[in-house]
Amino acid sequence: MTPTVGVIGGGQLARMMIPPAVALGIDLRVLAESAGESAGLAVTSIGDFRDLPTVLEFARGVDVVTFDHEHVPQDVLAGLVDAGIRVSPRPEALLYAQDKLLMRERLAALGLPVPDWAPIRSRDDLAAFLAANGGRAVLKTPRGGYDGKGVRVIGSVDDAADWLADGAVLLAEELVEFRRELAQLVARRSSGETVLWPVVESIQRDGVCAEVIAPAPRSAGRIADLAADIAVSIATNLDVTGVLAVELFETSDDRLVINELAMRPHNTGHWTIDGSTTSQFEQHLRAVLDLPLGATGTREPWSVMVNVLGGPGSGALPDRYPLALEDQPTVKFHSYGKASRPGRKVGHVTATGDELDEVVYRARAASEFFRA
Amino acid sequence: MTPTVGVIGGGQLARMMIPPAVALGIDLRVLAESAGESAGLAVTSIGDFRDLPTVLEFARGVDVVTFDHEHVPQDVLAGLVDAGIRVSPRPEALLYAQDKLLMRERLAALGLPVPDWAPIRSRDDLAAFLAANGGRAVLKTPRGGYDGKGVRVIGSVDDAADWLADGAVLLAEELVEFRRELAQLVARRSSGETVLWPVVESIQRDGVCAEVIAPAPRSAGRIADLAADIAVSIATNLDVTGVLAVELFETSDDRLVINELAMRPHNTGHWTIDGSTTSQFEQHLRAVLDLPLGATGTREPWSVMVNVLGGPGSGALPDRYPLALEDQPTVKFHSYGKASRPGRKVGHVTATGDELDEVVYRARAASEFFRA
Repeated sequence: MTPTVGVIGGGQLARMMIPPAVALGIDLRVLAESAGESAGLAVTSIGDFRDLPTVLEFARGVDVVTFDHEHVPQDVLAGLVDAGIRVSPRPEALLYAQDKLLMRERLAALGLPVPDWAPIRSRDDLAAFLAANGGRAVLKTPRGGYDGKGVRVIGSVDDAADWLADGAVLLAEELVEFRRELAQLVARRSSGETVLWPVVESIQRDGVCAEVIAPAPRSAGRIADLAADIAVSIATNLDVTGVLAVELFETSDDRLVINELAMRPHNTGHWTIDGSTTSQFEQHLRAVLDLPLGATGTREPWSVMVNVLGGPGSGALPDRYPLALEDQPTVKFHSYGKASRPGRKVGHVTATGDELDEVVYRARAASEFFRA
Repeated sequence: MTPTVGVIGGGQLARMMIPPAVALGIDLRVLAESAGESAGLAVTSIGDFRDLPTVLEFARGVDVVTFDHEHVPQDVLAGLVDAGIRVSPRPEALLYAQDKLLMRERLAALGLPVPDWAPIRSRDDLAAFLAANGGRAVLKTPRGGYDGKGVRVIGSVDDAADWLADGAVLLAEELVEFRRELAQLVARRSSGETVLWPVVESIQRDGVCAEVIAPAPRSAGRIADLAADIAVSIATNLDVTGVLAVELFETSDDRLVINELAMRPHNTGHWTIDGSTTSQFEQHLRAVLDLPLGATGTREPWSVMVNVLGGPGSGALPDRYPLALEDQPTVKFHSYGKASRPGRKVGHVTATGDELDEVVYRARAASEFFRA
């Protein structure tokens, strides 16, 4: 029997599941919103993931449905479950990746370290939160944000006037003073088996992940242990199956505080394709099929991933290959096969090696060829 | 512009080009003979590769045509070239991988080490060759053989009666006394750039590659240098573009003698997917597109690949994943998505690590789960 996985969403995360699906002999089927998406090669249906009949039709005959993004509405997920289709992660878990307010409530109730936070239903709520937090806060729309969208740093109630006028409940969080951002990836299958990759450092630019260093420098010991404990606790308590990414702040006073969750392969895990024995994409497929998980050791002491973003004058990655591949024969290049638009993630590069400085240099040098 | 490669043949070699094509953003198109072949995901045409109109139609719009096997007739190749389509390797080079008699003539003329050989057109020719070679010989049909087919060890003219009756010219070769079989892979692009992976040891069973150890134990120094020189000489003199595999005998008196050539990714290079910075499949795509070649260093000191052959009671590889993946979390599993038939190559496994004995153990242990 060929294991069959249905992925809702045709972006680069679904695309990067294709190579391990080919290797393992898994039938990967993708529901995309339109033709020509990044995961086009594996697309078997095109339609609206918010439409239950479309999703049910797509899911017919698959062993399990999983996701390229967390935007599938809960009523569609419930419809899949009602139809007897296995969904991984389960809707009850995915909810906490979909709604940041529920996530904060749940993690706080579990005693896990989160920033100070409050639900904001009015100008008064927000004024009170600002007053209690030195006049500044991070304000988030609980649903639909990604890559810095739906997130705003505010210094007054008026900074949030438009969002408050929308009437939706917002999430206010303290502006955490952090030294750096970390991410801990964990994979878990329904049997309960969990495996962890090393905690990584994630360098953001304009709210978007720019670089990832694996493992996070100077993380061995306490930081790595803390990050692992937090991720395993979330995965277990929320009964997450598949890959879970926990974005963390390492605070100026040496604590780890949970920033965001993603229940799918994540940008901070792209380095695993070239840097770990088992990539996050292979692991996600194994986990959602409830197959034994692969080893997560590093292939070399350091891996550095740099995202390639579209620029005003940039074309497709392959246009620059004649120069880039010549200059960096050891770097691995990943193109997402997407039209280039300013700021859009269109690919990434990964370098691995023994000396961090040198690995960072090679990864950045390779990425520079794709700057517009 | 998306680089576009057309592959004639839909077997596992075409299949294993899919992951690097996805990574690099190459549009891979495959001409298969029938539906449901190993490279099915990338199949864009189904038809007969011996039919020029079929192949011309398939090749429309690709940057280059390359191959999963060497059986495309020269007149079809000539038709592609006449139509202005780039073919890599070029038909003039591929000829020497198609016809073992021409290969022997050419390599001998280049002064490269080949076994004693002779064309056989009659019983008398064969009797003379046997008399000169101690009464034994390897007899080959110059065209169409693979995996031990079209090859026969004979001790008398009568052993070849059926083949002689066919009237075709045969190739007789001395029975080389060898210590072991080696293989040297090289990649070359039309600019002339060549890169070599380490020479490997190939262990055959019943004329079929069973295991590959990379690098070949005790090959550092003279053996590695000889193998490299031979492969580069062949690639350069025959103007090969793409991956070239040179199968070699290491003789009992410490010489290297050329056995067979293949001008495509080769079973002895499957270890490179998990064991080298650049896999032979990625390299082949780069080479035929005349893009700069990738680094060919080993990721760990040893890689061992073991083929998985179909058996009388065997099913698909994934049926055994629950046990195999649990037992060997560090081994990489590759399924070709083919129906299992006795003796058919249906997949392979690769282990990597520091200690050869231990790596061999893990690769064999993983492969045992798939024995019928």
